[in-house]
Amino acid sequence: MLNNAKGVYIVAQTPFDERGNVDLDSIDTLVDFYRGHGANGFTVLGVSGEAGKLSAEEARQVAERYIKCAGDLPVVIGVSNPSLAQLSAFSREAMDLGAAGVMIAPPAGLQTDEDLLGYFGEVFRRIEGTPTVLQDFPFASKVAMSVPLIHQLIERHQEIQLIKEEDLPCLNKISRLREGNGRRVAILTGNNAMYLPLELQRGADGPMAGFSYPEMLTQVYGLHQAGKFEEADDLFDIYLPLLRYEAMGFWGVCARKEVMRRRGAIRHATMRTPGPKLSEKDLHEIDRLVARLETRLGR
Amino acid sequence: MLNNAKGVYIVAQTPFDERGNVDLDSIDTLVDFYRGHGANGFTVLGVSGEAGKLSAEEARQVAERYIKCAGDLPVVIGVSNPSLAQLSAFSREAMDLGAAGVMIAPPAGLQTDEDLLGYFGEVFRRIEGTPTVLQDFPFASKVAMSVPLIHQLIERHQEIQLIKEEDLPCLNKISRLREGNGRRVAILTGNNAMYLPLELQRGADGPMAGFSYPEMLTQVYGLHQAGKFEEADDLFDIYLPLLRYEAMGFWGVCARKEVMRRRGAIRHATMRTPGPKLSEKDLHEIDRLVARLETRLGR
Amino acid sequence: MLNNAKGVYIVAQTPFDERGNVDLDSIDTLVDFYRGHGANGFTVLGVSGEAGKLSAEEARQVAERYIKCAGDLPVVIGVSNPSLAQLSAFSREAMDLGAAGVMIAPPAGLQTDEDLLGYFGEVFRRIEGTPTVLQDFPFASKVAMSVPLIHQLIERHQEIQLIKEEDLPCLNKISRLREGNGRRVAILTGNNAMYLPLELQRGADGPMAGFSYPEMLTQVYGLHQAGKFEEADDLFDIYLPLLRYEAMGFWGVCARKEVMRRRGAIRHATMRTPGPKLSEKDLHEIDRLVARLETRLGR
Amino acid sequence: MLNNAKGVYIVAQTPFDERGNVDLDSIDTLVDFYRGHGANGFTVLGVSGEAGKLSAEEARQVAERYIKCAGDLPVVIGVSNPSLAQLSAFSREAMDLGAAGVMIAPPAGLQTDEDLLGYFGEVFRRIEGTPTVLQDFPFASKVAMSVPLIHQLIERHQEIQLIKEEDLPCLNKISRLREGNGRRVAILTGNNAMYLPLELQRGADGPMAGFSYPEMLTQVYGLHQAGKFEEADDLFDIYLPLLRYEAMGFWGVCARKEVMRRRGAIRHATMRTPGPKLSEKDLHEIDRLVARLETRLGR
Repeated sequence: MLNNAKGVYIVAQTPFDERGNVDLDSIDTLVDFYRGHGANGFTVLGVSGEAGKLSAEEARQVAERYIKCAGDLPVVIGVSNPSLAQLSAFSREAMDLGAAGVMIAPPAGLQTDEDLLGYFGEVFRRIEGTPTVLQDFPFASKVAMSVPLIHQLIERHQEIQLIKEEDLPCLNKISRLREGNGRRVAILTGNNAMYLPLELQRGADGPMAGFSYPEMLTQVYGLHQAGKFEEADDLFDIYLPLLRYEAMGFWGVCARKEVMRRRGAIRHATMRTPGPKLSEKDLHEIDRLVARLETRLGR
Repeated sequence: MLNNAKGVYIVAQTPFDERGNVDLDSIDTLVDFYRGHGANGFTVLGVSGEAGKLSAEEARQVAERYIKCAGDLPVVIGVSNPSLAQLSAFSREAMDLGAAGVMIAPPAGLQTDEDLLGYFGEVFRRIEGTPTVLQDFPFASKVAMSVPLIHQLIERHQEIQLIKEEDLPCLNKISRLREGNGRRVAILTGNNAMYLPLELQRGADGPMAGFSYPEMLTQVYGLHQAGKFEEADDLFDIYLPLLRYEAMGFWGVCARKEVMRRRGAIRHATMRTPGPKLSEKDLHEIDRLVARLETRLGR
Repeated sequence: MLNNAKGVYIVAQTPFDERGNVDLDSIDTLVDFYRGHGANGFTVLGVSGEAGKLSAEEARQVAERYIKCAGDLPVVIGVSNPSLAQLSAFSREAMDLGAAGVMIAPPAGLQTDEDLLGYFGEVFRRIEGTPTVLQDFPFASKVAMSVPLIHQLIERHQEIQLIKEEDLPCLNKISRLREGNGRRVAILTGNNAMYLPLELQRGADGPMAGFSYPEMLTQVYGLHQAGKFEEADDLFDIYLPLLRYEAMGFWGVCARKEVMRRRGAIRHATMRTPGPKLSEKDLHEIDRLVARLETRLGR
Repeated sequence: MLNNAKGVYIVAQTPFDERGNVDLDSIDTLVDFYRGHGANGFTVLGVSGEAGKLSAEEARQVAERYIKCAGDLPVVIGVSNPSLAQLSAFSREAMDLGAAGVMIAPPAGLQTDEDLLGYFGEVFRRIEGTPTVLQDFPFASKVAMSVPLIHQLIERHQEIQLIKEEDLPCLNKISRLREGNGRRVAILTGNNAMYLPLELQRGADGPMAGFSYPEMLTQVYGLHQAGKFEEADDLFDIYLPLLRYEAMGFWGVCARKEVMRRRGAIRHATMRTPGPKLSEKDLHEIDRLVARLETRLGR
């Protein structure tokens, strides 16, 4: 099913309360918020979902809540882990909970194509048959995968149904991935959606990204699907100033949470420590960026 | 003098001909282009100037030509080099040729504050008295420098007159650098100017960045200086779609060269190998981005 | 108590059965083996203990079994984890099980002194009062810590009672750590004991290392304590050919397990995947190295 | 001709005087020293030859002097450089001066097999026909190359005549390289000769390494060639304590220079800054290690 993924898979944040505990109740409102803005699916416990800061039990709870709230919408659970034992255990848990699939980026330290082929051989020996999103995000994973390697992985492992492509530069890589003659997989794109309209032109099936105004993602995708490319660009460009603000790593994610808090999607903008806190100046910048956006949107 | 730098220091590209040889004549037209759009100074042989691909003799020739063409405008020469012997030899050459100063980023492999203090101690023992831009660009240099460390370096070394700040996220780092109580140095910002208006609000003295429409840099800076912050943002936002396109590493620099070629600033968009070449799809995207920009500018 | 650690803290392997499951029963025989050869304490779930490949539950079981078997001998539990939530949860578990302390290396990605001070501030806010071994092992952790930084950490955090020093080159770093004027902490050394007699001369309090002939570690330490420096070197040199064989990363650990299997300490030499398997040639080399060692020992 | 390289290619140090200037005269005595101890060839301007600290002109002078002094013995010149322009220019100079070949390790930052194939395609387009040593030394280069990739490079590029294999663990990699069915190339090994007898058993053609007692390298190689494997090990083991001392990075190279200074091979043990200086304690350790070695040798 992930082979045919299309549209907007929201990379969903993990809400925390003021003391840094997981705020499960805010997942309900956040899912409503995303769904109300047209999300077609969710990706949970990715890098910007602060998966790396959770305990195994917390991760399970977050996955469970998202899957429950999402109802009929597919939920992909990030399970990347330097420990194959933990990766495969959590994959099984996620699938048992009803996930549509898991997302895996290779662990730091793998370098050669041979290493990577060996690694994924081990992975899929353990989670055979599990629908999988292969995440190509070298900035965070520190592992580079070439197009020929990704094509090889697709041929070897039926489990790989979707590529989350967020290498930089991304555009020709998307074109080359699409030009392969092998089995078709879906390609969704990340990088905070900074290049979304261009990526869609290159053959991507939609974004797998987070943004505090998810309606932009769905509207740009919809306009693109309708062949209204200029309108898609026009709309995208209105949001770009805020989008690029949220694209600054974990600090940008904190800004994103703050905007979503203001929009009523979550109760707190807290990032779990170690993580950024917004300064007075940051908050003032967000005021201005949001005000300018709302003006541009004619509100 | 670099202590008081203000305005737009253009990070200048190195032009090559179709076969990859340095095209010194295009430096003349490129300097005219930049100057015509209001540049206050130049930074030559930085990362995006492809310094790492030149021979020592080619680097000297490029520096010489830029300094000669720039006339009264200050030229900063990038001299970063894993070899201190080469760094100091080229620094002396650059100053002898009339450079306003040199720019240095620490070499990959340095890790602790102690290592970095030791490194710069060695550097300034060798190029004592040379006005220096300290480049804080961990994405390219692979070396992280904290605010307290940069403050320490400023206190120890009178040579440091200007910080090129392009860590990410950059905004609070600029604020913190400014809040120091020590000797004042200039702060110019890089990151392809993606955050320019915000950086100016944080106390930066201007951009040290490259862009195919350098008039944006000077106009945004001018509007900011005039207190017209909304107009500065409005203008910046018009250019942001192209700006973010050019921000994708060396491939983005290639796009920048192509736009400058179209604008008559250089004869060829060539990047020296190993480096990107633009595909048909890339060129088509540039067509659209430039056309949209020109429309937005009312031309 | 770890402040006064002296002697040989064995870095203990984690035994697996032929299918890669944790072999808890082999922990009993392995502890007997180590104790029979004079171990003064144990360090469990370090890098060479394959901690990174275990699930949280498996790690707990291994820690529990070691602590139970070790009886009156102190057991240090490795708890390094990119997730502070997991690090602190496992620290509490380990101390509740009766550990003498925990061992922590900073996670990859931390770079500046400021980052590291912030990280350990967070760590000790969460595990306040827990006796801690600070592991300085940049080869594995990818994080460099300078002597001044380590001294600062010692001053700030009473929890740090012992430094496991295994940077390379190691000798002057040990001297410099010892020359500090601050609170005294123990210094034990790693790097597979490749430099043990020299490290003892520099003021180290003993090895915290693994070796298939742990009697070498205790005898060299004993001779050193008795002032018999030449005899210490003589004995050490006999073992050095095998020692350097076991020093080749995880593959060396696999060789170590094989020798310990032959000596009856564990039932299987298995490393958990992804990990090395010994080839015929490897096994033949081990035959020769062990035979030569036994000859040199006059057996 | 490098295809048939056999025996001991000494990785030769670069001598500096007390002020850090290249001491060309000491190259003459150093070559005599190495030759007198049976060297079959030289490798100059490698990592431990401090190539990274020289100016282009100094590198040329060092290469010239070594080639002149070496007479009929082959000299390989290290030309690795992040700049292809500098790499190819220096390769041509080296060959014009009479080098037997050049040695190249890929520059940091290359990651995938596709990147590496592209890189070496560019390299050999520029230095077509130049006999080349491919250096596989990931610890220093930060680039990993798998056995299948090295085999591919050998098939594509006739220029590659010799592999300097010094990945760790090294032994099975040597076996696998030898087991390839393609064109035969020589394999010489590095890693400070720490594993020399084992490497010879695996099919290596000799060491390409540095050591202050180069007679060990030639004698161990000779005993191995004569089938006297036990004697080879016996001799090797005598030197191992000093060998492992010299294996500690640049600081170990400084110790090596000091021992060679004492043996009359060079006038000064200076490493160029930034580089280590030996402390009193270091010098005392060297006293003891050398005295113990001389005793073991029965002198």
